[in-house]
Parts: sequence; C-alpha cells; structure tokens
Amino acid sequence: MALSNEIRFSKKRTWSHDLPISYLMQQGVENPGVLSLAAGLVDQNSLPVSITKNAFESLFSDSGAAREALQYGTTAGSLSLRKLLLTHLTNLEQKSAEELGVTVDNLIVTTGSQQYLSLLGEVLLDPGDICLVAAPTYFVFLGVLQGLGARIISVDTDESGMRMDSLDSTLEMLESQGQLDRVKMIYLVSDYENPSGLSLSVERRKQVIGVAQKWSKQHRIHILEDLAYRELCYDGPVLPSIRSFDKTGETVILTQTFSKSFAPGLRVGFGVASKQVCAAISDKKGNDDFGSTNMSQHILADALRENLYYDHVDYLRSVYREKRDCMLDSAESYFSKFRNVHWIHPRGGLYVWMTLPESIETGFQSPLFQKAIHQDKVMYVPGELCYAFDHGIDSSEQPVIQKNHMRLTFGVQNIEGIREGMKRLSDAVKSFI
Amino acid sequence: MALSNEIRFSKKRTWSHDLPISYLMQQGVENPGVLSLAAGLVDQNSLPVSITKNAFESLFSDSGAAREALQYGTTAGSLSLRKLLLTHLTNLEQKSAEELGVTVDNLIVTTGSQQYLSLLGEVLLDPGDICLVAAPTYFVFLGVLQGLGARIISVDTDESGMRMDSLDSTLEMLESQGQLDRVKMIYLVSDYENPSGLSLSVERRKQVIGVAQKWSKQHRIHILEDLAYRELCYDGPVLPSIRSFDKTGETVILTQTFSKSFAPGLRVGFGVASKQVCAAISDKKGNDDFGSTNMSQHILADALRENLYYDHVDYLRSVYREKRDCMLDSAESYFSKFRNVHWIHPRGGLYVWMTLPESIETGFQSPLFQKAIHQDKVMYVPGELCYAFDHGIDSSEQPVIQKNHMRLTFGVQNIEGIREGMKRLSDAVKSFI
Repeated sequence: MALSNEIRFSKKRTWSHDLPISYLMQQGVENPGVLSLAAGLVDQNSLPVSITKNAFESLFSDSGAAREALQYGTTAGSLSLRKLLLTHLTNLEQKSAEELGVTVDNLIVTTGSQQYLSLLGEVLLDPGDICLVAAPTYFVFLGVLQGLGARIISVDTDESGMRMDSLDSTLEMLESQGQLDRVKMIYLVSDYENPSGLSLSVERRKQVIGVAQKWSKQHRIHILEDLAYRELCYDGPVLPSIRSFDKTGETVILTQTFSKSFAPGLRVGFGVASKQVCAAISDKKGNDDFGSTNMSQHILADALRENLYYDHVDYLRSVYREKRDCMLDSAESYFSKFRNVHWIHPRGGLYVWMTLPESIETGFQSPLFQKAIHQDKVMYVPGELCYAFDHGIDSSEQPVIQKNHMRLTFGVQNIEGIREGMKRLSDAVKSFI
Repeated sequence: MALSNEIRFSKKRTWSHDLPISYLMQQGVENPGVLSLAAGLVDQNSLPVSITKNAFESLFSDSGAAREALQYGTTAGSLSLRKLLLTHLTNLEQKSAEELGVTVDNLIVTTGSQQYLSLLGEVLLDPGDICLVAAPTYFVFLGVLQGLGARIISVDTDESGMRMDSLDSTLEMLESQGQLDRVKMIYLVSDYENPSGLSLSVERRKQVIGVAQKWSKQHRIHILEDLAYRELCYDGPVLPSIRSFDKTGETVILTQTFSKSFAPGLRVGFGVASKQVCAAISDKKGNDDFGSTNMSQHILADALRENLYYDHVDYLRSVYREKRDCMLDSAESYFSKFRNVHWIHPRGGLYVWMTLPESIETGFQSPLFQKAIHQDKVMYVPGELCYAFDHGIDSSEQPVIQKNHMRLTFGVQNIEGIREGMKRLSDAVKSFI
C-alpha cells in the first residue's frame, strides 16, 4: 500500500485558516516602503522604557523577589498583581470592590486580553453556538469565533453603538426559529470600538443587561464586555462599564488589557467573571500554558504599586490626543473636498472609521486597495473584515456587509507619518471618486 | 417565564474539569506545613537572577531595543530569538540546520512548551481522534488530550521507553477495528520522561519513525517529541533526538522549553514542525494571543547570544546532579529496608519513580496519600494519574493502570528538604508494609 503524507488537520484548523490579519502582515512585509495606517501597534516613542527599567531594577534589587518572578507562578496569575488589579478596577469604576461584587478570585491574568477572549470562547462555545456582535466590530474576535465554529450574528449599530431594539428583535427572531438555546453570548466593545471609534451610550449599557437576562430562558446568556481601550480617553465623559450595572456580577464578563495603556510586549491582560466561569477558564488555561509570563506580571505590579502606571497613562492620553487630532485635521485637509466621504471623530481609542461613496469598494482585491498599496504606498484595514455574515438567517434579517469603509489608525505612525499617510490615501481615493 | 441562570458550558469544558493538578495545588495550599515532593517547580536558589539582570540591562541600555521589546512582536516569535534557537538546536543535535532540514520558518516560539503541546493538539485533533502515549507518561498532556475529547491509547513501556513491538501491534489492532483513520499522533518524551525518568533508547528513536510511516496509510501520523528535559543530563550519554533521524522533517514535531534549563517565569518554549503544521499553529496562536511575551524573548535572546545561558546550564546540571544523588541516597537509606519497594535511577530530568508493593495503592483517596499529607506532612504525585485508560478497546489490549507508584521530584526542595521529605515518606509507607 502506498503511504500517505497528507496531513489531516482538525476541523477547527480548517475554520481558522486564511485569517485576514495574516494577509495584512504579509502585505506589510512584502511592501516595505508602505506607510501603514493599518497596523494595530501602539505608539513606539511613548513606550514606558524608564518605568519598566525602574520596575525591573526595584524587583531585581531583592533576589528573593527576583527568584519569585523567575519561578512558575499560578495559572490565575500573581496574587499581588491581582490585588492591584482589583484596586485598579475600583478606581476606574469609582465603586468599591464590594459594590462591584468582585474579589481577587473573580480575576484571571492572561496573555493580553486577547487570550481571555479566546479562552472564554473555548469554554462557552460549541460549534454552531451563537455569539451576537455589533456591525462592525473587532475583526480578530470574529476570527476567534470562526475558529471555534461558532455562528456570528451581527446586530445593527448606530452612533450610540449596538442598537438595543435590534438586539432584542434578533433574539426574538432566533427564538422563533428555535435557535435561542444556541445563543451563548453578546460581545460588546464599550469604549471607542475597534474599528468604528464609537462608544455604547450609558443608557444602552444599562439596557443590555436586561435584554440578556430577558432572553436567558434556557440558560444564561453572557455579555462579554471588551474594555481594551477604556483608559485611552481624550475627551470626556468617561463612562461606567456595563459590568458596573450588573448587580449580581453573573451576566457580564469584563476584560481589559495593558497592551494599549502600557506595553503590549509584556502581554498582560485580565478578565473578571463569576467563579464558575473563572474555574472553567482557569482549567483551560492550566492545560494551555500554566499561566502567563510571571516576570511581566511582577513588573506591571511594581508600576501599578508606585503609581508610575497612572502617570504614564496621563502622558499617553496627551500623546494620542495629538495624534488623533492630526489624523482628523489631515482628513479635513485631504478628504473634505470629496463628496460623500465622511469619518467619525472618536473620543478615544486608536481608530478613525472612514466611509467612502458606496460605489468604492475597499477590500483586499479592490482596485482601491491594490492602488493604495502598490502605487501610493499606504495601507489601511478594509472595513468589510469587521462585518460578519451568518448563512443561517435570511439576509434581510441581518445588517449588510458594508464594503466602502476603511479602518485607519493613528496608533503607530508619528505626526509626520499620519499626515503623509493621509495624503497618500487621499491620492489613492481621488482616482476613484 | 422564569429566567434561567444556569451556565451551559462548551463540551470541551466538561471534558477538562476536575484536573488532578488543581487537586494537588489545592492540597498544597490547604496543608501549608506539607513538604512537597510533588510540585513541578524548579530549584529556587539556582534561578538565573544575575544573568537575567545583565540581559535586561543590556537590552534597556539601548532605548530602541527596549522599545522593540515593549512593542507587539510577531505571532511566531522574535526573529532574532528564532535564529538563536536554530543555532541552539544544531548545537544540541550536532548537526547543521541543513542536515536537519530546519530554518527559522519551521520554528514557533510559545508560552513554554506546554502551549506548543496544546496548540498542536488543537490543530490536529478532533474529538474521538487518537493519540498513542507511553504508560506511564506526562499527566498534564493527558489532561490536554482529554480536554480536546481525544482518545488516549497507552502503549507498553519498559526500561528503554515505549516498546516498538507494542506500538506496532496496537496500531495493527486499531486498523483491524477500522480505527486507524482516527490515529493522529504518537506522543513521546524522549529524555528522562516525566514521571518515570526513563529515556527512549537510540534504537527505538530510529525505529519509531518507520512505525509511524508504516501506519500512515490514510494520512500522516505525526510523532510529537517532547524534549522538555533534554538539557538536564547528569550522566551520559546524551542521545540524539528522534527528530534528528527524520530525514524529510515531516514526521516528527519537536518541542523544547527554557522553563527547566533557565527560568519558567519567562515562559519561553518553542517547537519545530513542517511548514504546513507551523502555519496551522501560527493561525491558532494568532487568534489565541498574537504571540508570547516579547520582552522575555528579548532577554532570553541576549542570554543565548552571550553564551551566559550555556554556562548556566552547566551550573544547573551540577546543582540537580547533587539533588538527584541526595534523593537516591535517601531512598537507599529509608526505603531499602522495605521488601518489594524499588525505584528508578534517572540519568537526568527531575523525577524519581518509586514502586511500592502491589497491595499498596497511592491515589488521592488511598490511605497512604491521606496519611502522608495529614500525618507525615509530605506530598507526592500518585502514579496512576500518569496512565490513560481507553474505553474503546478491550482492557486486555492495553497496559493496566498501575496504582502502586509514586512520582517524586527533587526539583523544588533543597538537600535538607529532600532528605526530610524522603524520611517522612518512608514513615508514611512503613505502616502499610
């Protein structure tokens, strides 16, 4: 018998290949002269070099503490860091830990909040289970859901974020189709959503808990609240989280990261959930990696303890506010001359969402993307990547995938890069107007 | 209608709860006076405090390099580290990268080798797929496989590791049962296996590639070679890996870690596989966490580049050799008086595998374990955790789960702790002889 050299991968593997992020990164590598308004990196110059150095030196001045940082930690994360995270959370929410119903046992430290999102998907979702998301939403999480074989159903969004009437009617429709028992979670990026830059209004933050509970008929429907950008606020008001309105602490699962507000290279994020959900995540994480980098956790703990972290976030806000204003000014300078081109002014975060006339598609294979990357030497994220389409329901019952948006970021480029990138992008767009 | 607050977890979650490691850790916390010969931590005193400090200072003396370490890296890991890992591997194998057929593109950096094991399981195994393992084997990987819903089939093992005749006949049996198409991998810990301390003989390292290829009839059966302990060798000879005999580089997937030979708190491991398998792992890892801690990778790269790593491993070998000898001496002192108690003398690694008379069970609920932990204040890992039982085949066709073993480690205790722990353990055993 002839031997076979064919690899038979798992089903999950077939669901998670051809990730758009891989294509984007490949384009970046293959076109080195390209100015990226796409890459989700953070501002290079404001990374906390001296704070990290101080924290490291303080940690390593005590060889006992240094050894602890170099040894295995626990799967849930360093207890001293988790205590500081609890204080951090109460500072942000302006509520006590008791009022929030949170203790260190509700907190798990992960490799960025991305790992928390992924672990939660693993423990909650079977293939065919449903997660409801805004349209548009964070496209890497769409990739996670696809990789789990989950159904992703999009809900209409307006300038105040996901529409609660649309969420409610979508759930009603799913119940009428006998699919309500497959709905496991509602995913929401509360502040300055990637890609739209929009925030969910306070009114809706309160309402969504009621909607989730109303439709928790067969089992609990969780709200997964992604607060990756909450600290990057450049204009008020700062809004309380959805989690802060969850009196029992059982409906909302909250996740945050230090990747945007401190340093992604440390890979520290965390999540807050009920003890049952924590136990599930901890078991899965124990099998996956025994816990995230202990040394990073100790460095971050030092930065939080000494308040150096908070000073840094203040400084970061001024850095990014200037960069955001530069991108908005450049948009005004280079794009206001085009008819039917508009963009959102985000109050925080890292993204500007730009809408072109409906006739101009922005996808990887579109003439605009190809011209931008090869001729004008500028790159953006096609907006269509941020929309999910579910084949299980009628297309009239879900938001259409809009193909004429671009996600632009002011995170990684400096002021000159932002201005030049926006100029190049307007050159690319001009020929299609 | 009454609302439901019941959480409906994924199937995977139900497969991975009640992990034995959680029970063990809980026992450790609840019984603080207990001397642990169970915990898989590394020696605290020999952790590389000054090497890490030097590496960090060197990295942070250049603010450009420091910023690079604090920024996002790539999912596959830092290119400069991967180049050094390639050299590291060729040093260990005493073969060139060309002879091994490995480039940096075959290498992925992970959060310890544990994450590599878990990612590989995710991309290869569907529920019901089969992985063949030695009896006994690394119990945390059994937990990973269970969490994926995989079938685990144990293969007889003797003092030279997994028996190739048993492996062959097990595969023949599976084919006769129409199950060969579900066999995806053969898992082997080549050097100083956790828990047995045994190594696979060179002859079998060569043979197993042929066996895997012979039964790769419907698709490729991979060998997953876990080399977590390869550098912790206290008595020669150092053996070449299974991977070094794999001419095409497509059958064997190799994984290693710096947790044992340097510092687990940095959480750096890596794996080597064919490009197809790398692509699958990279996609999954991209969804899971975008890459492991960049700063750890830069620190380790510095230690490797400056050869400080190699000096440290030399030193570690002398530290652990002394600790191993202490455990073997203590075994001789306290256990040689008991009939039918024997133990393996490991040439490397961190574990001593001790066999009690068949009538003495060692499991969590056994009188011995309970007496040891509550009265004699000492803890070990019950050997039965390291055996898998598959309900899909007749019990006459698989190795029996042996219930009279203990896995003892000399990793975490100092010399006094090892001696005292062994004395306490002999007190616990004495009353059952």
